[in-house]
Amino acid sequence: MPQPSPTPGRILLVGFGPGHADHLTFRAAQAIGEAQVVIGYSTYIDLVAHMLEGKEVVVKGMTEELDRCEMALERARAGQVVALISSGDVGIYGMAGPTYEVLQAAGWRPGSDVAVEVVPGVTALSACAARVGAPLTHDFAAISLSDLLTPWEVIERRLKAAAESDFVVALYNPKSGRRTRQIVRAREIFMEHREPGTPVALVKSAYREREELELTTLEHMLEFKIGMLTTVLVGSSNTFVYEGLMITPRGYKNKYDLATGEVRAGEMPGRSLSSGLQP
Amino acid sequence: MPQPSPTPGRILLVGFGPGHADHLTFRAAQAIGEAQVVIGYSTYIDLVAHMLEGKEVVVKGMTEELDRCEMALERARAGQVVALISSGDVGIYGMAGPTYEVLQAAGWRPGSDVAVEVVPGVTALSACAARVGAPLTHDFAAISLSDLLTPWEVIERRLKAAAESDFVVALYNPKSGRRTRQIVRAREIFMEHREPGTPVALVKSAYREREELELTTLEHMLEFKIGMLTTVLVGSSNTFVYEGLMITPRGYKNKYDLATGEVRAGEMPGRSLSSGLQP
Repeated sequence: MPQPSPTPGRILLVGFGPGHADHLTFRAAQAIGEAQVVIGYSTYIDLVAHMLEGKEVVVKGMTEELDRCEMALERARAGQVVALISSGDVGIYGMAGPTYEVLQAAGWRPGSDVAVEVVPGVTALSACAARVGAPLTHDFAAISLSDLLTPWEVIERRLKAAAESDFVVALYNPKSGRRTRQIVRAREIFMEHREPGTPVALVKSAYREREELELTTLEHMLEFKIGMLTTVLVGSSNTFVYEGLMITPRGYKNKYDLATGEVRAGEMPGRSLSSGLQP
Repeated sequence: MPQPSPTPGRILLVGFGPGHADHLTFRAAQAIGEAQVVIGYSTYIDLVAHMLEGKEVVVKGMTEELDRCEMALERARAGQVVALISSGDVGIYGMAGPTYEVLQAAGWRPGSDVAVEVVPGVTALSACAARVGAPLTHDFAAISLSDLLTPWEVIERRLKAAAESDFVVALYNPKSGRRTRQIVRAREIFMEHREPGTPVALVKSAYREREELELTTLEHMLEFKIGMLTTVLVGSSNTFVYEGLMITPRGYKNKYDLATGEVRAGEMPGRSLSSGLQP
């Protein structure tokens, strides 16, 4: 067994949330502070530039994710503290997964020469939801429309399943310069299962300076700008819009009269709905 | 139109993350600091007790969610700053939705007498994932097994759809003293579509003092304790366990040789997979 060195290197996988300093966690800020080397995609580096003074900063391009992981391992094995940073939550479509895969391929094991910590953050769907109301109060699915690494048939199967079974859906990576048909096809699938008037929110750069919010519908969503930095939130059959807010009910109306607070006939607080799974 | 008062009341809907001070956002801490009145379920109040000195604290029970919203509105209309707090993200199965519904029923409108702010937090699935590896690196669904407010048939339809279409699934509210059959039925549904050896993580109270982590499989998951505070993460067909870490690959192996970094024959960096949606 290799013995840990006296000052072992560390890899900190840090999700810094939507990209505004207010919505960073204390641990994420601390972790970036501890790092000697910070590695990330250029947009991410820009968003936390004020925290990087005195650190070595390594800017990598969009298609160099695996390079970033390999460099992190190399530096950590040399005894450095390395932060690999992602916006949102580093565990959701982020660098945590690829990093562990690269570590595995390199023969790394937990408890060996390099310590690894995943620092969770506020993911895009949480941040975007907060800006448009409360669309995620009930079951939801997250689907990335990027087919750079995933066969389109897998993505399409998930779109159909989520559309049919009435999940609220957050679409990540809906469109890029080259990938333009994916969002068109995704909308077609939703239109087969949901009303054209189903609320859809298009949220670009939530909480950042260039934030753009658009509340639209399945029918009209393609008339608006959708890009690399947009998250698309598609409502369920219960989602409604009230005065510019997108809201998915938790279901209290199934049991209570919201105006009087009275329990509906046949229902009991703290018990399954009358249409629930009975014991 | 009602005129806003000179010191209008506010409702702050605050998600404070998993319940450890390190994983709170700066804005969540600030928002709780601004509040004169803090309303929450007793477990939530305990978790942020160190932040509540000098504030009025209103502890409500599990089945009094709507009361909490109504009280928040009443106090805010009287000019107070009120924080309604939830663990995790207040927008995900949290108080943001019910509060907006109660506000709507009371005739409130955005821009009127009471300002409302949703402060997003690190949701349970992000926190739990960070503690067990990187299970959420690809598409996932969140499903609550509570049928207190949702017809069981709706829940079961979503379980089947998510199981069939190979989402990683986070099960919220998997079990309580009274609701014990839901998790049994959910597992049955997954067993119809996935291998018995599919990785499953059971995470209780992530990042809290009494945290419990269990990495098991679909086959064996019911042999372990599952309760009100457990989040269940069910892997996709691609999820694997490496040295006690649960990892869902992002898909780099579909395009690159992870050992050499070489692009596989027929694939191009930055372009759709050869099995992608072609232009």
